[in-house]
Amino acid sequence: MARLVMKFGGTSLTDVRHIRNVARHVKREVAAGHQVAVVVSAMAGTTNQLVAWTAEMAPLHDAREYDTVVASGEQITSGLLAIALQDVGVEARSWQGWQIPIKTDAAHGAARIVEIVSDRLIERLARGQVAVVSGFQGVAPDNRIATLGRGGSDTSAVALAAALNAARCDIYTDVDGVYTSDPRIVQKARRLARVSYEEMLEMASLGAKVLQVRSVELAMVHGVRILVRSSFTEPGAPELAGGNEPPGTLICDEDEIVEKKIVSGIAYSKDEAEISLRRLADKPGVAAAVFGPLAAADINVDMIVQNISEDGTLTDLTFTVPTADYERSHAVLERAKDQIGYEIIQGSTEIAKVSVIGIGMRSHAGVAADCFKALAAKGINIRAITTSEIKISVLIEAPYTELAVRTLHSLYGLDNT
Amino acid sequence: MARLVMKFGGTSLTDVRHIRNVARHVKREVAAGHQVAVVVSAMAGTTNQLVAWTAEMAPLHDAREYDTVVASGEQITSGLLAIALQDVGVEARSWQGWQIPIKTDAAHGAARIVEIVSDRLIERLARGQVAVVSGFQGVAPDNRIATLGRGGSDTSAVALAAALNAARCDIYTDVDGVYTSDPRIVQKARRLARVSYEEMLEMASLGAKVLQVRSVELAMVHGVRILVRSSFTEPGAPELAGGNEPPGTLICDEDEIVEKKIVSGIAYSKDEAEISLRRLADKPGVAAAVFGPLAAADINVDMIVQNISEDGTLTDLTFTVPTADYERSHAVLERAKDQIGYEIIQGSTEIAKVSVIGIGMRSHAGVAADCFKALAAKGINIRAITTSEIKISVLIEAPYTELAVRTLHSLYGLDNT
Repeated sequence: MARLVMKFGGTSLTDVRHIRNVARHVKREVAAGHQVAVVVSAMAGTTNQLVAWTAEMAPLHDAREYDTVVASGEQITSGLLAIALQDVGVEARSWQGWQIPIKTDAAHGAARIVEIVSDRLIERLARGQVAVVSGFQGVAPDNRIATLGRGGSDTSAVALAAALNAARCDIYTDVDGVYTSDPRIVQKARRLARVSYEEMLEMASLGAKVLQVRSVELAMVHGVRILVRSSFTEPGAPELAGGNEPPGTLICDEDEIVEKKIVSGIAYSKDEAEISLRRLADKPGVAAAVFGPLAAADINVDMIVQNISEDGTLTDLTFTVPTADYERSHAVLERAKDQIGYEIIQGSTEIAKVSVIGIGMRSHAGVAADCFKALAAKGINIRAITTSEIKISVLIEAPYTELAVRTLHSLYGLDNT
Repeated sequence: MARLVMKFGGTSLTDVRHIRNVARHVKREVAAGHQVAVVVSAMAGTTNQLVAWTAEMAPLHDAREYDTVVASGEQITSGLLAIALQDVGVEARSWQGWQIPIKTDAAHGAARIVEIVSDRLIERLARGQVAVVSGFQGVAPDNRIATLGRGGSDTSAVALAAALNAARCDIYTDVDGVYTSDPRIVQKARRLARVSYEEMLEMASLGAKVLQVRSVELAMVHGVRILVRSSFTEPGAPELAGGNEPPGTLICDEDEIVEKKIVSGIAYSKDEAEISLRRLADKPGVAAAVFGPLAAADINVDMIVQNISEDGTLTDLTFTVPTADYERSHAVLERAKDQIGYEIIQGSTEIAKVSVIGIGMRSHAGVAADCFKALAAKGINIRAITTSEIKISVLIEAPYTELAVRTLHSLYGLDNT
């Protein structure tokens, strides 16, 4: 018997039939003797429709009104799921952010949770009532609804699990776990039974879109164990008991991972674009002249490579920005051309970032060298490199993405055999 | 300069374009120097969809969850209208029932407003901010959302007008006022400039579906003047100033109506069905034996006619029930057949009730006699009659409805010439 948070995303709540299926998943856990709080997203498509209406009404609009409109999607699914649970004999009630309350800061549209007042929830859970909590929302200091930003329901679930001191936060989604790579590209990708917070953070931020990055950070800070699993499996199947691994992927502290693999996964991202400034004066302060205006325009620069010229007076600078900011970055740099003092600006959106991730790298040398050698052997040109303690990222031409990912997946022994 | 409540129904809020149009209506009143609170319904169709989902999930469901789901429609339109108002330069914010708060009783699904805490709204209105209030909802003593029952936004608007001591409550709808009869049937129907609360109550309950009955009752109790008007007119047109009649129909105390007409309108309803019990024992307690079981089944009986038999031992009893309850009424009476002691049960849904309404009737004799004579002259058989101080209703066969309504409309001089 444990306290559980179960979170269901929009694709698990698309209609009455799907919501009934979710109710059966919840009933299974209640029948197993657990105290259960459920966090729900809006029906798939609803949030996009609501966001589109606010944008159509006025491109620049009051974030407090945006929150009022957009948070209604979760209000609908929370009420419907409570009805579905009662219909299968499970005592349940819905909770909106302002009712609990889930207190946020004043940053409407992208608020952060400050506090979850959990006393009443805990009391109800102890009495056997399931709490169905609207994800993605809370109440700001002005007593108005605040939303947490897109994908915020994952964050709601993890924060609630922390507040309730839950044994686990189960994130139900349309995939059955976290894989060693994208199964659409790598047929031999395997589901990971366990992955550490640090690895998951790298994977999430690199395009493995299973979980929102913020929710993983929050889980790491509060030590919330997350189980990523599918809502499309048979809800009636009893859980494996005792020491067996549960279905899905457990995201946990690395201390919980006994057998640490050197490399856990290969991620990739096509959401970055490359910009090169040619024949830049190689003098102190030039980097600030380039990246200052970009930072002022709220554009995140990721990988940076500087090639020093032969005579030491001119240089080339290459870096990546999110593809969505590519045009804007160009405009910012064109405007700042005279202050920076470059000759040519070039760029491409036809690039990809491929990353090798694994906590085992910390204690193993030669992982990076193996990577570069294997890619070279396939004729794949590396345009830039960044590394961290548990990650190696390389920038390559986009058409080579799949080849590079498969090559590295095999290289580090991740292929399912 | 006055304080106004403006209420817009779902057909005035169907999409972004319609909501923009509503914003222009509001802007016109603000520009005229008025303090404005707006009450909104959900987009047309939204509430029906939400209600359908709750019913599909479970035919019998928790009214508190129903309220949570269904109230989200108004949350969406209130936020969108606030954005639209800001976009045309009008300071505005949305208010949900729990934020004001609009306190209701505990009767979730059909709650009554107990109190509207208006201090903060009045303060904001005085500062020139438009309050956009979600209609149809409030917050119950359990701190959960409560809805007022279908059509409840009219009630929200009138209650808010009373709480704010507003000069007028303008109900914008898809018709431009209250007519002497249904214009789809009577081409010569005229818009009434003014109509008393009492008359409007009779018209509303008899099928002139412009306003919810409860909102008119509430307006009468609190002396709230209601102006029914169209949202589809040009919003930019300035209001007529001073003593001129505003567009639409003003529903007010009869003291405000200088020229009292004998008859103000002819209403009809096809939502009633007739049931006859034949050869009933004519003894004390038989009426209780018939109407007791119907009342216990929550079925409202309207018109009742009893024909006493020649020998005084047997009788026929005829009465009307809502068409929606017709089958159920039959079943109830079949079950109680032995206790009641009748021989034959007959019935028809092919009947209509036509009513002549007017406060002037109080001081004029012969109105009813004229009605019966005119219908007889057209060969229309009257199956039952009920009268009140300001109303005469007759039950006729449904195919004669249009003929009867037009005949009476002409008879009492209501035709537009």
